[in-house]
Amino acid sequence: MTSTAAVLHDVVADIAAQMKARPDRGEVATYIPELARVDPAGFGICVVGADGAVASAGDSDAPFSIQSVSKVFTLTLALGMAGDRLWRRVGREPSGSPFNSVVQLEYERGVPRNPFINAGAIAVTDVILSGHQPKEALGEILRFIRFISDDDGITIDKAVAASEQRTGFRNVALANYMKSFGVLENPVDYTLGVYFHHCAIAMSCRQLAMAGRFLAHGGRNPSTGLSVVSQERARRINALMLTCGHYDGSGEFAYRVGLPGKSGVGGGILAIVPGVASIAVWSPGLDASGNSHLGRIALEQLSKRMGWSIFG
Amino acid sequence: MTSTAAVLHDVVADIAAQMKARPDRGEVATYIPELARVDPAGFGICVVGADGAVASAGDSDAPFSIQSVSKVFTLTLALGMAGDRLWRRVGREPSGSPFNSVVQLEYERGVPRNPFINAGAIAVTDVILSGHQPKEALGEILRFIRFISDDDGITIDKAVAASEQRTGFRNVALANYMKSFGVLENPVDYTLGVYFHHCAIAMSCRQLAMAGRFLAHGGRNPSTGLSVVSQERARRINALMLTCGHYDGSGEFAYRVGLPGKSGVGGGILAIVPGVASIAVWSPGLDASGNSHLGRIALEQLSKRMGWSIFG
Amino acid sequence: MTSTAAVLHDVVADIAAQMKARPDRGEVATYIPELARVDPAGFGICVVGADGAVASAGDSDAPFSIQSVSKVFTLTLALGMAGDRLWRRVGREPSGSPFNSVVQLEYERGVPRNPFINAGAIAVTDVILSGHQPKEALGEILRFIRFISDDDGITIDKAVAASEQRTGFRNVALANYMKSFGVLENPVDYTLGVYFHHCAIAMSCRQLAMAGRFLAHGGRNPSTGLSVVSQERARRINALMLTCGHYDGSGEFAYRVGLPGKSGVGGGILAIVPGVASIAVWSPGLDASGNSHLGRIALEQLSKRMGWSIFG
Amino acid sequence: MTSTAAVLHDVVADIAAQMKARPDRGEVATYIPELARVDPAGFGICVVGADGAVASAGDSDAPFSIQSVSKVFTLTLALGMAGDRLWRRVGREPSGSPFNSVVQLEYERGVPRNPFINAGAIAVTDVILSGHQPKEALGEILRFIRFISDDDGITIDKAVAASEQRTGFRNVALANYMKSFGVLENPVDYTLGVYFHHCAIAMSCRQLAMAGRFLAHGGRNPSTGLSVVSQERARRINALMLTCGHYDGSGEFAYRVGLPGKSGVGGGILAIVPGVASIAVWSPGLDASGNSHLGRIALEQLSKRMGWSIFG
Repeated sequence: MTSTAAVLHDVVADIAAQMKARPDRGEVATYIPELARVDPAGFGICVVGADGAVASAGDSDAPFSIQSVSKVFTLTLALGMAGDRLWRRVGREPSGSPFNSVVQLEYERGVPRNPFINAGAIAVTDVILSGHQPKEALGEILRFIRFISDDDGITIDKAVAASEQRTGFRNVALANYMKSFGVLENPVDYTLGVYFHHCAIAMSCRQLAMAGRFLAHGGRNPSTGLSVVSQERARRINALMLTCGHYDGSGEFAYRVGLPGKSGVGGGILAIVPGVASIAVWSPGLDASGNSHLGRIALEQLSKRMGWSIFG
Repeated sequence: MTSTAAVLHDVVADIAAQMKARPDRGEVATYIPELARVDPAGFGICVVGADGAVASAGDSDAPFSIQSVSKVFTLTLALGMAGDRLWRRVGREPSGSPFNSVVQLEYERGVPRNPFINAGAIAVTDVILSGHQPKEALGEILRFIRFISDDDGITIDKAVAASEQRTGFRNVALANYMKSFGVLENPVDYTLGVYFHHCAIAMSCRQLAMAGRFLAHGGRNPSTGLSVVSQERARRINALMLTCGHYDGSGEFAYRVGLPGKSGVGGGILAIVPGVASIAVWSPGLDASGNSHLGRIALEQLSKRMGWSIFG
Repeated sequence: MTSTAAVLHDVVADIAAQMKARPDRGEVATYIPELARVDPAGFGICVVGADGAVASAGDSDAPFSIQSVSKVFTLTLALGMAGDRLWRRVGREPSGSPFNSVVQLEYERGVPRNPFINAGAIAVTDVILSGHQPKEALGEILRFIRFISDDDGITIDKAVAASEQRTGFRNVALANYMKSFGVLENPVDYTLGVYFHHCAIAMSCRQLAMAGRFLAHGGRNPSTGLSVVSQERARRINALMLTCGHYDGSGEFAYRVGLPGKSGVGGGILAIVPGVASIAVWSPGLDASGNSHLGRIALEQLSKRMGWSIFG
Repeated sequence: MTSTAAVLHDVVADIAAQMKARPDRGEVATYIPELARVDPAGFGICVVGADGAVASAGDSDAPFSIQSVSKVFTLTLALGMAGDRLWRRVGREPSGSPFNSVVQLEYERGVPRNPFINAGAIAVTDVILSGHQPKEALGEILRFIRFISDDDGITIDKAVAASEQRTGFRNVALANYMKSFGVLENPVDYTLGVYFHHCAIAMSCRQLAMAGRFLAHGGRNPSTGLSVVSQERARRINALMLTCGHYDGSGEFAYRVGLPGKSGVGGGILAIVPGVASIAVWSPGLDASGNSHLGRIALEQLSKRMGWSIFG
């Protein structure tokens, strides 16, 4: 780490001020009606270092819908349950197509390319369910996220979940498509119910950055020293975030930011500096690939100014 | 760097011994007749550290056809010539399809997804040509590779180039397809002539690892201190290697090895440990994605044992 | 018509005898569990001429699940309701892909290529529903089929409908996919409920051949003289059957049989000889494209021996 | 045939007058520079009946580039040479994609879907070549067309051939793509040389309608009584024209016109009324599918007014 805590604080504050002021804010997602009501003016950032020091600025305590960022946590949980058997149901390659594409599924007989596109995340959720009731599976997911965040205040925004459940036809299509190939084992409604709800978890940048610590620190919670996953697994999840975490903008994110990251259509991004820090940014306006427009720009600046790119 | 030079030498020697002995060697590429004649028993490895120290084992001085590994060097050269204008003709996203797929080209009107699939590398070669004679462009490429390797002995294997020129119908198809969309500016024969010849450059693991040093060291040749490219550009080329360097096996390579790398169907792989080392491995047998089977396994072991993954 | 009724009777009887005896019977559809139980030995044929004369042989009075043959009747009904507005929701081109492909839907933003692939037929069913209750729409369809067949004994096989409703995940996927683009206007469950039920209508060859008479005779029921549709509409429905009626085997059917026809996975085919006859054949074993194997062969022989091809 | 020769003459003259006057003329093809120079005002029509009577109007003696209409004649010739072995190299199904698409080729390993899309016609040309010199093959094709037209004045427009040879990158891509799968047997340049030249044959509507007579009359030249192909083969070629003759507008042509037909980007269409007449129309402006805009409308009117649809 080439900077002191003081530098980091200044950089974070400066970035937040710039982002707050920019007129180009991207487009708030409209396909989930409840999300469309979010104010595009929001911007928050929080960085948690190895020593637990926190640097934050902007709306860093405002809760937002984490949406697909939750896929990092469900993947971690499912790997803990099924180990490498998980990879029978989902691949590990970038998809080369939009987050909700069904074309790839047809050419690969219902097996999604990776756990971070919608189809793949639904398959992962199905692994977590594995015969249990939706309520139990959802409880498991929520408990896990609270555990890694050291924060019991994290909850599900039921209005968002209900909104998506009413309008998420594309995800219903993807799930039924996989079901027709036997890739899903539980009733489609169960799996989708859990999926829509874990996507509707609300977290602030601070909570999200706390939740990502184990990925920055070899699988351990650096404040408690408790192991969440093995170092190898943490490393591999980071690799998947780097190659697949931003849908069809993953190459661009790696090129510009140079950090493993996972975005959500709620405007949040979790990014990891291995060995150094866990970062969460949030700004609800999206770019053409469905990733937070200012969130990505903020991370690009932060990575550059702190010398944090994993690519040298 | 968590290891001393002695440990590295032992690890490299041990890996080479194991790889030499393994019965599973993949399949030697047959679509270029001249390559099909290579003995699958070969295995070489060479690591060049920041201080110039070299650890090598196996057939590390045997020349092989670098094939698509050359795309790293042509990309570097083309960026030096055209800067960001290059990106008007080629994208930066993983392709989600095999190295010689034409489907993506049709859906994206002749613009290849990234500079490391065949179509993208042909477009990059066309940028290098930009009105010159094929011979001049090829001379430029060869001079550049000799310069970054500090080795004037590197040459083109004309039998391989001729072999591919006789049989490379798929690449002729890709090039003409791009030409029909105006993505190529030079006569197709010129561009392909240069492309087939730079793919036919022969290098040993030692030469290749030397050539990769500038990517490991912020754009500089660590022995001379001369800058080849800016630090930002080196970082970005590494990012592209990570997300796109192994065709449709790029996600798998990132997941298992955790290093930026670029493979070629001749069985070579160049991998970069940012700030630490440049690595070349070679074993001619390929896996289903067209990447060196034992080369990838060797790099996975090396990365693990040396703690070199960029993902923590 | 180049033959007398006597010749036709002999030809029909001869074909049925041959088909009964053939060992190659195709594969009975298994994806709808209830259909998988049908005996592959069945074969029936029935030809109804302009004068109402009937030539039949084999199991011509055995009821079978008409499945996709019903799409001819729902298309006719929907055109009667919506006229050319129907074509805003579905195209008129052969699909070049299997009956349940979703790829084309993605590339054409949810608008199915033609009314005879599954997606297109679901869109047509949605037009028939148009705000009504599923029961009413289904009643409408059944009444229409009874009317054109002059047969009130035609019913829905509820076991088949229930079987498909439990297992038709691919169709659920297609419908939700279209819904996500706004191509369906009714609740997906309603539309699919009607769709699964009209596919589960059971008819014999005799009933089916009677139902097809209006298409053979310029839109009129030749026995009553009542007009069902205009001559132009009958002609156009025949054209659609010719180009799209056998999924990805439509070209082959036109090439070999030379008649407009519509097949179903229950093993039935309705074929039309414009101005001359309406034909129904049934044999439950299917070929690779999902069309009745012996049904197609029987029609090829019949068309050839009677000189009925529309192509000269 | 429901009309007398007098009615036909009036109808043909009336249609030509209407078409000459219409302001909507489509867009003249620009991708072959030489074709882009054609005046969009042209319109010609010629109908040749069973008795040899000719009804023509407009620019029916003006020569135009027949382009893809030539594919009907090369298919006929190749079937005569290779018989059903031809179908190992090309399919018989509508393509569901534009005339020059390469996507289908990738999914079906280099085998084109039908003989009327560009890739399929190139494969057919390769069958005709089968080891001969391009000049000989081209001579064969030209002799055949002169023979079926009873007209030795038919020639190749070498300026058009050269123009396409200079700019036909997409066709070069398709041919090389097939070559990479072994679907073409001759040198790509040879096959494409013959292909570009037979597409550049210039004919008038009168000559083209004469050439189509054998397809309207069971394989025979009705004036000489000589057999060109068997009745079955004529019927099958008509079937292929119906399902595949207008690229991705084949369904629409069948729906509106109801006749087997083959279009070319030069603006010509050959249409067949089995047992009745051979028709050629020409108007150089194209619709979005690459078929003659006014040509199709003229045929729709002619078919309707003469009651010639094969669909009843």
